[in-house]
Order: sequence, then structure tokens, then C-alpha cells
Amino acid sequence: MLFAIIMAGGSGTRFWPKSRRNRPKQLLALHGDATMLQQTVARIAGLVPPDRVLIITGADQAEATRAQLPDLPPGNVIAEPCPRDTAPCVGLAAQIVARRDPEGTMIVMPADHVIRPVDAFLTTVKAAVAVIDADPSALVTFGVKPTRPETGYGYIERGALLETRDGVAVNRVIQFREKPDRDTAERFLASGNFAWNAGIFLWRARTILGEINRHRPQLGAGLDRIGAGLGTPAEADVLAEEFPKLDRTPIDKAVMEKAENVKVLEVRYDWNDVGDWRALKALIEPDGAGNTIQGDVIARDTSNSIILSNDGGLIATLGLDDVVIVQAGKATLVARRDQLDKLKALVEGLAESGHEEYL
Amino acid sequence: MLFAIIMAGGSGTRFWPKSRRNRPKQLLALHGDATMLQQTVARIAGLVPPDRVLIITGADQAEATRAQLPDLPPGNVIAEPCPRDTAPCVGLAAQIVARRDPEGTMIVMPADHVIRPVDAFLTTVKAAVAVIDADPSALVTFGVKPTRPETGYGYIERGALLETRDGVAVNRVIQFREKPDRDTAERFLASGNFAWNAGIFLWRARTILGEINRHRPQLGAGLDRIGAGLGTPAEADVLAEEFPKLDRTPIDKAVMEKAENVKVLEVRYDWNDVGDWRALKALIEPDGAGNTIQGDVIARDTSNSIILSNDGGLIATLGLDDVVIVQAGKATLVARRDQLDKLKALVEGLAESGHEEYL
Repeated sequence: MLFAIIMAGGSGTRFWPKSRRNRPKQLLALHGDATMLQQTVARIAGLVPPDRVLIITGADQAEATRAQLPDLPPGNVIAEPCPRDTAPCVGLAAQIVARRDPEGTMIVMPADHVIRPVDAFLTTVKAAVAVIDADPSALVTFGVKPTRPETGYGYIERGALLETRDGVAVNRVIQFREKPDRDTAERFLASGNFAWNAGIFLWRARTILGEINRHRPQLGAGLDRIGAGLGTPAEADVLAEEFPKLDRTPIDKAVMEKAENVKVLEVRYDWNDVGDWRALKALIEPDGAGNTIQGDVIARDTSNSIILSNDGGLIATLGLDDVVIVQAGKATLVARRDQLDKLKALVEGLAESGHEEYL
Repeated sequence: MLFAIIMAGGSGTRFWPKSRRNRPKQLLALHGDATMLQQTVARIAGLVPPDRVLIITGADQAEATRAQLPDLPPGNVIAEPCPRDTAPCVGLAAQIVARRDPEGTMIVMPADHVIRPVDAFLTTVKAAVAVIDADPSALVTFGVKPTRPETGYGYIERGALLETRDGVAVNRVIQFREKPDRDTAERFLASGNFAWNAGIFLWRARTILGEINRHRPQLGAGLDRIGAGLGTPAEADVLAEEFPKLDRTPIDKAVMEKAENVKVLEVRYDWNDVGDWRALKALIEPDGAGNTIQGDVIARDTSNSIILSNDGGLIATLGLDDVVIVQAGKATLVARRDQLDKLKALVEGLAESGHEEYL
């Protein structure tokens, strides 16, 4: 059986002031009516029914997450006792899946990416399931064709073409490469052999737990203790006791870079990781002057800007270019577009400057 | 006796969104705790007690004006039935003053200028009163020494020095000149013989009424009918009936440009007509990066900007230069500083774009 694991952590600093500590990116409707989390669940619904969708989120966000997904059994929203990066998150989910179906396959997806069209996505997922059914010991990852020398993503080097399933190329993975410098990224782009690591994986629960045990035995042992507690009266206590002790490490580094049987499927849909406010330029049709606008906005002599009024107020602009303005609640951000990388640091400084209420 | 006439009309478009139709500039505290109107009344208080201070304002604003000046007899706040520029306003005030004291002198002042220090201002007013006492048929105007070739002001050409009173030079006026073009303004500035017309006048009520009757007999006749109604049961009806028929014309044009015995006193205090948000740069001490900031603001990598959070919200900026940001109520303005001349047009367009509530 196929299970969908949606990783819905994230602190939400990059979409401040609309995102806050208890309302991170995936719980926001940044474009359209549905939140990114709801869109992620809806996307996989054609292949995975609600009772086999698991959301792994933070304790702060579990309640809001359940409220957004009324069709999911409440127990399918699992709150991590503390943030521990993706390896413990994936391992916890794999323990749950393995307990429900020892032969269960799981797709792991971030809750905050935009993927369209949905049918192209589902074609890729079906192909990935077929790859695993034919080779249950494999780990499958999805690779996005790069369109720019992005230094903010991880890359996957493709090796030999193994097969083509339902029109989807399946290649051996030679190596995973963390965020490269600019020159390296240019080289990756030029070579044509590298794909962006989109953070979507598909494998048998048993396989990934075996790989974790092999490459990170301490992490594997902790996950096994948590797994042994599942379905017992001690479940919550064991999770609270053991989870915080797990290594804080990403699954890419803990397993993917070391595993031998890793295959990459080419992604043939549009993918956007919605990194910060600038991503909205690709998701919302701009006006004639290149402005991306939401809510009540009067943009005079204004161009190439992103202007979002989120709570019914009016934003009026005069003579601006390349500016990002976001109003949400009682906070307003005004930034030059090319300075938005500093937003995370600004938000992280809010507590210190006595602005706790805006976190 | 000296009366103070404070002209407190004004639509308040240039300080949007803090200023609104019912809350124009003079009713705002743009710097410090007191509103500009309260500061104007306080400034003259050393020479004119509250019962001889008259405020001429619009019907929309009379209630808010009275509320800001609890020490004034409520009847001293006079609501014009409709806006009719400064000649009818001054004429109405002169009728009221003449009825209370046929020999009464009146100083006419806008409610929305910043003047300091106060004692230098009072010295000039006392000198002007002395000039009028010695020559009751004269009209006195206050001239500000120009510091730049401003094209937005009216100018006064000074003639012969007539006298020096309490250290204040009193000159004959050769001519009034409306807002000049740039070249003319440069010439005025270079000549040293021109002063800015600060819109402050001092004269006997009887004298100005006589001048209005001479140069604008129809306006004078209307004002006389209003004057005849004052203190009678028909007062309000006569004002409502006659005032709207008066010529819509400024006192400069109706009288000052034509009158023969006009004298200009040199102004020896700092004067700022607080034309738009940019004026705050001179009124509020800037931070180290040249930013003028009010309220809860985090300005990162931001310089030469004016950032005003008026209602307790937070404004955070990243990487801006030369920008004006004003948040008030549910509206936020973000403008390049050199584009602020277009604000009036933007605000005037609000009704048409369905934003009546922000006017």
C-alpha cells in the first residue's frame, strides 16, 4: 500500500509578516484559496486516501494543521516533540507505516512546494511506485531539471539510464551534492547531468529503516524504540522520551549520500519551492507593469514590485520599482526585492528588539 | 484690542493616510504631542487671550476643532457653510471683530505652519501691532527670507525701508508675485529684495473691510449683509444664505495685490509651512542614517527615508533609500520621496476607485 508522508515543519521566517511562528508557510494560502498544505494533500489524493496520509509537524502547529484537514483522522497528524530535521522525521513516519503495512511504500513530500499540473505529478509518482515494486530495496528520489545556476538547492548527479517507465526516465544516482558555489552551479547546469533535489522521496518503509540502521545505527536504534512503543499505552511517553535524543540531521546526509541503490526519476511538471515572497512572481499573474498584487492595492507609477495587502487594508504606492511590500495583521514589511535574503535575520532579531508579538 | 484669526480649513490630501477629510493637517500632531492647531493657538496665547481667538474652519471639522480647544468659547469656532478661499474667510472674521471692537486689530494666521522660537514670533507680532497703531490704514504682511528658489510659494517684493521697530525691519511692498517659474524664483532669490509670503497678515478689521469694499465691492456687500446679521436671531440663516454667494478668491489677489498702503515685516524666526511628509525631515531629529522615524519601526540598511507608524503597528524595512512610508488606520502609503507631489492626485482619485472610506 502507498502512504503519503507530508513534512510540515518550518518556522516561516521567509514569509513574514504573513507567516508567524504558529502559522508557517504551509498553513498559508499564498496564492489561490487553499493553503499549501491543503494543496499538497489534494495533489496526492488521487493515489492515497486520507487515512493513509500522515502529516509530521511541530507541536505548536498540530492543532492548526488538523483544523485545515478535517477529512484526515486526527491521529494522522503527528506532532514531533521538538524539531529534529528530516532524518528523524522520515524515520518516525517509516516506523508508523511499517507497523500498519510491513510491505508499505511511502512517498515523502514537503508541505510547502507548488507542483503543477497534478496529473504529470501523479504519473511520476506511479512510475516511482512501479520502480520500487520491481526493486524493493531501491531508494527513489525526484530530480528537477535545473533552469538556472541556483546556489540554494542540493543537486543530484545522474548516472546511467536504467529504464523508462510510463515515459519517465529512471537513472542511477552517482552523487548528491549540497548547495554548490556559483561556479560549481554553473558547471552543473552546463553539464546537463545534474538535477535539483526536490526533496521528494519514495521507498518501502522497511527499506529506509534498514538504510538508517546501516548508516546511522544510533538513530536507527532510537527509531526502533519509538516503533516498539507505537500502539501501546506508552506510545506518547516513549516518543517524548526518545525523539529529542535523535540526531538532528537531514535524510539526504544521513542516508541518501551513502546508500548504494538510489535511483532518480525525472520530474516533468513545474516545481516551485516557494522560497520567499519573490516566488509569488511565478505563481500570480503580474499586471501590465510587472507587479504581483494581492488585496486592496493602488500601485501608481510602480513596477516589478510585489505588493500584498492581506487583511483588508489599503496599500497605496507612488513611483516604486523592485520593491516588496507585505502587510499582515499589525505588521508591514517594505523591502528592496534584492535584499529579501536578509528577511530571515530580521525576523530572528524581533525577539531581541522586544517584538515577540510579531513572531 | 488684538484678535487672532486662525484659518483652519484645508482638505488634508498631502498628509494622507494620516490626514483624512475630517482630520486634516491642522488637527494632527505631526511632531510632538500637540496638534498644529493647538500649537498655533498656544503660540499667540502670550498676546491674545482665548476669548479673542477665532478659528474659521469647515463645517465637517468644527466639532473636532472645538474638541481640541476646550479653553475657547465654542462660539469662537466658526464653521464656513462651504469653502470659499481666504478673502471671504478673512472678511467674515473682520465682520465679527469689528462688531466686538470697531477699532479692533486682527492677526490672520494659517493653522498649519510651524514657527519657532515663539518669542521671536511674538516680537514680530508686537512690532506689527505698533506699526498699525501708528498707521491704522496700513495692511501688514509678514515676509520670510527665502532660502531656496521655491516655486510653490508667493513672493513679496520689498521697497524702501520705512522704519525699524523693536529690531524688525518694516518695508514698503512694491508688488506681490504669485508662484513663479524656476528661473524667476532664482532671480528673486539672487536679488535679495524678495520675501516669501508666509500668509500671516495684521490689520484693523475696519481697514481690511474698507479695502475689500473698494477692490471687490460685490464681496464687500455680501460681507456687510453677513455682518448686519451677526448677533441677531437671523445670524445663522444669513450666513448660510450669503456666504456661499461670496467670490471664491484669495485675499492676496482680492486685496493685497491692489492695496496701496501695504507694509512687510521681516520674519526673524524659523518658518515651515509643512507642505507634505517631506517637511518632517526638518521637524524631527533624524537617525544616523538620515531617517525620520515615528512609532514602532525597524529600519535595516535603510537611509534618507521617512517612516511613520501611527497606530501602534510595526513597520520593518530592508535596504531602502529615499522612501516615504506612512501607516495610519487601515491604510499604508509607500512612495519614493521625489514622487510625493503626486500624492494629492492619488488621494483625489480614491473616491473614483471605490476607496471612499479612506478619504
